Amino acid sequence: MTETVLVDGRAQESVSVRDRGFLYGDGLFETIAISRGVPLLWEYHMRRLVRDARRLGIGVPDMEQLRREADHLIAGRERAVLRIVFTRGSGSRGYAAPADLSPTRVVSIADWPSHPSGAGDQGVCVRFCRTRLGRNPALAGIKHLNRLEQVLARAEWENGATEGLMLDDRDRVIEGTMTNVFAVRDGALVTPDLAESGVAGIMRELVLELAALQYTVRVEALTREQALVSDELFLTNSLIGVWPVNRLEGRERSVGPVSRRMQQLLRETGAVA
Amino acid sequence: MTETVLVDGRAQESVSVRDRGFLYGDGLFETIAISRGVPLLWEYHMRRLVRDARRLGIGVPDMEQLRREADHLIAGRERAVLRIVFTRGSGSRGYAAPADLSPTRVVSIADWPSHPSGAGDQGVCVRFCRTRLGRNPALAGIKHLNRLEQVLARAEWENGATEGLMLDDRDRVIEGTMTNVFAVRDGALVTPDLAESGVAGIMRELVLELAALQYTVRVEALTREQALVSDELFLTNSLIGVWPVNRLEGRERSVGPVSRRMQQLLRETGAVA
Repeated sequence: MTETVLVDGRAQESVSVRDRGFLYGDGLFETIAISRGVPLLWEYHMRRLVRDARRLGIGVPDMEQLRREADHLIAGRERAVLRIVFTRGSGSRGYAAPADLSPTRVVSIADWPSHPSGAGDQGVCVRFCRTRLGRNPALAGIKHLNRLEQVLARAEWENGATEGLMLDDRDRVIEGTMTNVFAVRDGALVTPDLAESGVAGIMRELVLELAALQYTVRVEALTREQALVSDELFLTNSLIGVWPVNRLEGRERSVGPVSRRMQQLLRETGAVA
Repeated sequence: MTETVLVDGRAQESVSVRDRGFLYGDGLFETIAISRGVPLLWEYHMRRLVRDARRLGIGVPDMEQLRREADHLIAGRERAVLRIVFTRGSGSRGYAAPADLSPTRVVSIADWPSHPSGAGDQGVCVRFCRTRLGRNPALAGIKHLNRLEQVLARAEWENGATEGLMLDDRDRVIEGTMTNVFAVRDGALVTPDLAESGVAGIMRELVLELAALQYTVRVEALTREQALVSDELFLTNSLIGVWPVNRLEGRERSVGPVSRRMQQLLRETGAVA
């Protein structure tokens, strides 16, 4: 049988009930696109994982070890999704964690998910979620395992929309449930500031870098109203690259030149599957 | 070997890496005091578990089954802590959960924790945490598994304080990292409103019920300043009952008559171990 999960390097599909990932969501994860047998943007993912582990005070991951385990699971696969979970470790009870806790790493591989056909070309239909994102600077930006807000938001709809945009309590658009969001307004490319809420995605980071070479780019608050009247709107994550939004809250939108240009630049850099 | 963990009724100490409790903290927990072989306030815990499961859209637990499993683990123990984890289930990837997912239940038993000696009699030393609680009405009050805020807050200190009080972004005291908080001010017993943040503890609920028979009780905002100048301050949870605060941010406080009366009432009702 082909192995699909390694827990601390061993082929197994379970973790301890005392793992702090299970007890408190006390850990991090990365979702990495595998294309032609290669993990895309590996260095970006590792840089974020290390940064976030430091922010949470979790031991720093051994990146070469993670890469060996990733390569072991990737072997023989062309296109797939690699997931890395990195928790504070197992064995302690209560919120206080012993300093000598050894982090748990779970590396797993899965088939490429089924996305709506033509999502990148024609764009996707998007809605606003009722579930709000709480604000917490200590956790903002981190791709941690406390994801109940996203779970509740995603449960709001079944069909009709591909993604939902989440607002904070001040009616500011922060992100999609599984994507970051960009808007074109007043000639500039704008993406929400994530100082208080949201996940700072790898693809968001790359799009910001690439766009800065030819557009005015601003990281700032984006209100619900500003998103609705923006010239263009697109979504990003590591698996989809750029998805233009062709419908928001029932209103049709055209796919604009900035969205197309960013898709082209990502293809040229080999950053998308 | 004595069993200490049952996962879906089976003696094992692990859960699937695909369990949504591990993936997203997508679940609930209860921590129940066992005294003289009996789980205290069982009905209160079950009522909250059912209420919270409904709020998260998780299937409702079978309470008789949980009780049978609890009794199996309790057998032969006088004093212990029972923990129930109830997650949305295992097997799906992505935030969207299939409607037919079967919840996972983990029932486990552990030794009674070591608390500071004399904490109930003499009181405990308490500090304010720097880590703030985010505000989210959709999750407020629920004893869910997204507990990174508490983990980060508890990591702020090692010795010197027994508990830390957590504020929201408006400088309102919400709760301790593992306790609820009550203050006596202007002749009334006040506990913070948990409509936007915090965990609605079982012991908090019982204290509110008992106190209403003889005191003016108010559930309302409690600022940091109001907590500092309050006449009495005490902490509650299912294991400790009532702990008076005898020191807050370095200032000594006396243990007052309301704290003592609530301890007495809890003893009389048999609600504490």
